[in-house]
Amino acid sequence: MSNQPLPSPAEDYSGWYNDIVYRADLCEQSPVRGCIIIKPYGYEIWEGIKNALDMRFKATGHSNAYFPLFIPMSYLQREAEHVEGFSPELAVVTIGGGETLAEPLVVRPTSETIIGEAFAKWIQSYRDLPLLMNQWANVVRWEMRTRPFLRTAEFLWQEGHTAHATHDEAEAETLQMLDVYADMAINVAAIPVIKGQKAESEKFAGALRTYSIEAMMGDKKALQSGTSHNLGQNFAKAFNIQYLDRGNQLQHCWTTSWGLSTRMVGAVIMAHGDEKGLRLPPRLAPIQVVIVPIFKNDDERGKVMEAAERIHKTLAGAGIRVKVDERDDLSPGFKYNDWEMRGVPVRLEVGPKDVVNNVVMSARRDMGKEGKRSLPQEGIVASVTALLDEIQASLLAQATAFRDANIFDVKTYDELKQVVEAGGFARGWYAGEKEEDKRIKNDTGATHRCFPLEQPGDGGACFLTSKPAARVALFAKAY
Amino acid sequence: MSNQPLPSPAEDYSGWYNDIVYRADLCEQSPVRGCIIIKPYGYEIWEGIKNALDMRFKATGHSNAYFPLFIPMSYLQREAEHVEGFSPELAVVTIGGGETLAEPLVVRPTSETIIGEAFAKWIQSYRDLPLLMNQWANVVRWEMRTRPFLRTAEFLWQEGHTAHATHDEAEAETLQMLDVYADMAINVAAIPVIKGQKAESEKFAGALRTYSIEAMMGDKKALQSGTSHNLGQNFAKAFNIQYLDRGNQLQHCWTTSWGLSTRMVGAVIMAHGDEKGLRLPPRLAPIQVVIVPIFKNDDERGKVMEAAERIHKTLAGAGIRVKVDERDDLSPGFKYNDWEMRGVPVRLEVGPKDVVNNVVMSARRDMGKEGKRSLPQEGIVASVTALLDEIQASLLAQATAFRDANIFDVKTYDELKQVVEAGGFARGWYAGEKEEDKRIKNDTGATHRCFPLEQPGDGGACFLTSKPAARVALFAKAY
Repeated sequence: MSNQPLPSPAEDYSGWYNDIVYRADLCEQSPVRGCIIIKPYGYEIWEGIKNALDMRFKATGHSNAYFPLFIPMSYLQREAEHVEGFSPELAVVTIGGGETLAEPLVVRPTSETIIGEAFAKWIQSYRDLPLLMNQWANVVRWEMRTRPFLRTAEFLWQEGHTAHATHDEAEAETLQMLDVYADMAINVAAIPVIKGQKAESEKFAGALRTYSIEAMMGDKKALQSGTSHNLGQNFAKAFNIQYLDRGNQLQHCWTTSWGLSTRMVGAVIMAHGDEKGLRLPPRLAPIQVVIVPIFKNDDERGKVMEAAERIHKTLAGAGIRVKVDERDDLSPGFKYNDWEMRGVPVRLEVGPKDVVNNVVMSARRDMGKEGKRSLPQEGIVASVTALLDEIQASLLAQATAFRDANIFDVKTYDELKQVVEAGGFARGWYAGEKEEDKRIKNDTGATHRCFPLEQPGDGGACFLTSKPAARVALFAKAY
Repeated sequence: MSNQPLPSPAEDYSGWYNDIVYRADLCEQSPVRGCIIIKPYGYEIWEGIKNALDMRFKATGHSNAYFPLFIPMSYLQREAEHVEGFSPELAVVTIGGGETLAEPLVVRPTSETIIGEAFAKWIQSYRDLPLLMNQWANVVRWEMRTRPFLRTAEFLWQEGHTAHATHDEAEAETLQMLDVYADMAINVAAIPVIKGQKAESEKFAGALRTYSIEAMMGDKKALQSGTSHNLGQNFAKAFNIQYLDRGNQLQHCWTTSWGLSTRMVGAVIMAHGDEKGLRLPPRLAPIQVVIVPIFKNDDERGKVMEAAERIHKTLAGAGIRVKVDERDDLSPGFKYNDWEMRGVPVRLEVGPKDVVNNVVMSARRDMGKEGKRSLPQEGIVASVTALLDEIQASLLAQATAFRDANIFDVKTYDELKQVVEAGGFARGWYAGEKEEDKRIKNDTGATHRCFPLEQPGDGGACFLTSKPAARVALFAKAY
């Protein structure tokens, strides 16, 4: 813990990010290459995301289950694109119980294959469909370059897996779960994500179509924050997931999968953080309100602490996540900085005068001094609840304004290059395919983020090839 | 799904257990040796256990965190007994990202070592103590003989890890968490566990003292259902977990760890199940109430379904987990058997006469025909809630009576042999040590379960050696 300033996000965003995750006590490097330790404060943010999603998954008819961590190597090989996509990233168990295994086991990088095998057993007829499952799990992808939360060798996530009778039902499920992700991102994490379809060059290994939610970070780069895949019949054919339809004909199922990971914690940090540290949306903040008592002597201390404890009890009783900072050896100013670093949305200062006047001084993490307001102790639950709602809305509004100010329409390749160079998302009519995506990436460092689901009109000339294009695409540098 | 009877638990307990886990749809064998797939119905029971524990951990001041799945092999070797205990059971990753690793990584069998390393960094002074953490995770132990839920190569669990300034504080924590386990087992799972201290021969590899909760299964065997370890300073010394005390002296910490796993699902099955299948305690039952509509024609169907839906809505609105069995192609009798197999505590039958009379017929899973009662539809929430409470209490009372009727005091080794032969727990004054534990195990197949914390008096003559003994011990065959 220290009160040193962070590196300026404007000058050194990467240094700022690396500092903030440690200084706000979210995580720590572990002795295992590419793996982090998620500390309680970081884990609670993940628990908030997890609970918000789990509730939504159950409300849309999904059940949780748990499948093995290990997958026989031969399973991955059954879907050609899938094994090609994941082979370079695998961690492989070759020894078990002191003996070399006859068939090496892969530590799951994702579970389409082992779940596909189970689905094939469980599904007999149209009556068994749709089959809607989710699993909360750890997965391992042996990444060469890792960054806390954003890209780690092991990460926590959920992976949904479903099977359907028709293409259209699978597509509807894929889009429904994309909506669930967007709803959580926007209304819980206060991140105004853009829903879109991934280009061929960026889709999941083995999918028919991949959709994602893309978020803009504080440095105007993109972060893919969740993906939803229509797997078509690819895995159904590889694993013989078949059903007897109403006409007693054997058909291959249509399957989907969708995942969101601890990467989302990184999105929260970078979508909202500022030069003072984290700014947490109230709905995800492990501590929504911190009470800092202010006193000079034991007499004042007694009165102030009594009031602080009383307010703590009142707020906690109303379900507000609140903490009194009782640390004796630190000044109020130091404590303010410390809780600002940790992104606590509301600070309540209680001094001797406040006790006399039956008020507290409130400060908002999303505003400076102009956000300070004296609140009567009477009715504190209602006024703090209103403040938290305002802050939740304000963070979303700020992030939305920032995003909208940094998406630029481009008509030519030169314009795209300028946007990418200056920072931001470039949006333009686009008829390019894999080759063109690759060229743009090589030339500019920007990748094809998606074709947004919300499209501006009937089509136009491709900014790159001048061919007629039916959709606009987004390009940006990305994490 | 079938209505075939289960093997008789009296004649073939093992066959009964193996059948019930599949027939009640709790889990399935996976293609990976020793690993099961936990299906939604089984996973929901685990979620119930998890939520009950997580709430209790948080209420006693513990925070959740997440540590890496992989542990460098050298870490395990730092605590001599620990590595000796776990070496035969390790799964080892030797290849990552296509290359042979310089140091093999062990898939965690438990996390004392990697968490110990982190604690050593985080703890500086007495102000950092106690440090109270928990992690929900998967672990892998390469077991040769596996059984669904009871012993699987991969299993889900929580592992608590704490550090303290003194032996006594660590001991108090160890016993507090044992109490938390017992409270959950007794008051949520309705299993009357016995708290006790493990013998030297049965303690955790690297611990000073191990405590456990032991439960009696339906075949009178014991199941260790949770363990809590006072690790002394063993891991603190191996990992340099030190703190500056108030006198500015560097001291080694005293650490604890405690774990409870998906094995508990097995305990629920075997503590309560009967010849018809599962019997789930209402507090853990994924479905607490099933409504079975009964009708002969479309006219009856309309009226009955309307009532069933209305009752469903009323109960669900009150937070009761309720389901209407709408399956068209199955008879009511088949449905009764099916839900009995799955252990649903309360069944409500709704037929045309019930609709006319504004009643439903209720049946209790813990009783036969004598438990059937007609309930007015008016006030159904209160009457069903009362029924669920009665069933919860009745399952605990039945299991307690069964346990108490099958613990026998023994004064001689012959008496112990008779008890073990006939089935049950043998309790007797005992002054034996590792050698004697081993002899009893070899002779009878029974293991030293624990020295119960609740002791009957001041001491007596050891049933085996006739030496003066300070404590009674429990012996039983065990899972």
